[in-house]
Amino acid sequence: MSDLHIRPATVEDVPAIVAMLADDMLGKSREDAADLTPYLAAFAVADADPHQHIVVAERDGRVVGTLQLTVIYGLSLKAATRGQVEGVRIHRDERGTGLGTTLMEWAATRAKELGCSLIQLSSNSARTDAHRFYERLGYSGSHIGYKMNL
Amino acid sequence: MSDLHIRPATVEDVPAIVAMLADDMLGKSREDAADLTPYLAAFAVADADPHQHIVVAERDGRVVGTLQLTVIYGLSLKAATRGQVEGVRIHRDERGTGLGTTLMEWAATRAKELGCSLIQLSSNSARTDAHRFYERLGYSGSHIGYKMNL
Repeated sequence: MSDLHIRPATVEDVPAIVAMLADDMLGKSREDAADLTPYLAAFAVADADPHQHIVVAERDGRVVGTLQLTVIYGLSLKAATRGQVEGVRIHRDERGTGLGTTLMEWAATRAKELGCSLIQLSSNSARTDAHRFYERLGYSGSHIGYKMNL
Repeated sequence: MSDLHIRPATVEDVPAIVAMLADDMLGKSREDAADLTPYLAAFAVADADPHQHIVVAERDGRVVGTLQLTVIYGLSLKAATRGQVEGVRIHRDERGTGLGTTLMEWAATRAKELGCSLIQLSSNSARTDAHRFYERLGYSGSHIGYKMNL
């Protein structure tokens, strides 16, 4: 394996992140990589929020993975601080290399550094491969994830 | 029904919120209402974060419901802004009155006002009554919710 860095995303990474979001079994019908305007606007807001961490994995100068970690301070579970993971994607060329594991382990370590006692995510029921992956990492699929469009 | 207000929680509401968190099928073994220190500390952080909204429902001057709405700006789903709901609790005396529906409808309306195009939550698989409740409100249990302690 060549040199891998995991680092905060910058605005210059947005096209590569969106390309990965779109190159996905569900994302291909839900994303629009041809118009970056909404993605750039959302990135600016997230980037200004100290509790949002959009990161990329870079290998040899190329963006090959991404996820977003949100730190949620709340009262339940004895005021547990939660790390919530969204938007996990690995570049097609890097799937099966262990990069997903490295990136998720990085997220757990970073969440703990940020004071989280719990890390959580929800995964579409159709993503059966992802479910096995999260279970291997030690996650428990103890909850039902509900969504509603507004 | 007498007069109901849904409003941002203040530090004075924390004891009543924690009492509701603890008076719950899962919360009773997970919360410690005798020591408010961690709850007060977490409330201060959440209260200072413009993207966190801990709210209470108050009837006749008494706190009878609570939830937390977190606004998450991210890149996936064409940069959808998500409203995430945590810590939904209704006081024992008010269960079955429709307050849960009122509070969750308030959350969806507020999330939309805050720019969210999606509202989401996860519910422990053991909370079968809650699942029917969320489904009646229009939520789809399309995801598996994964958690891992750190």
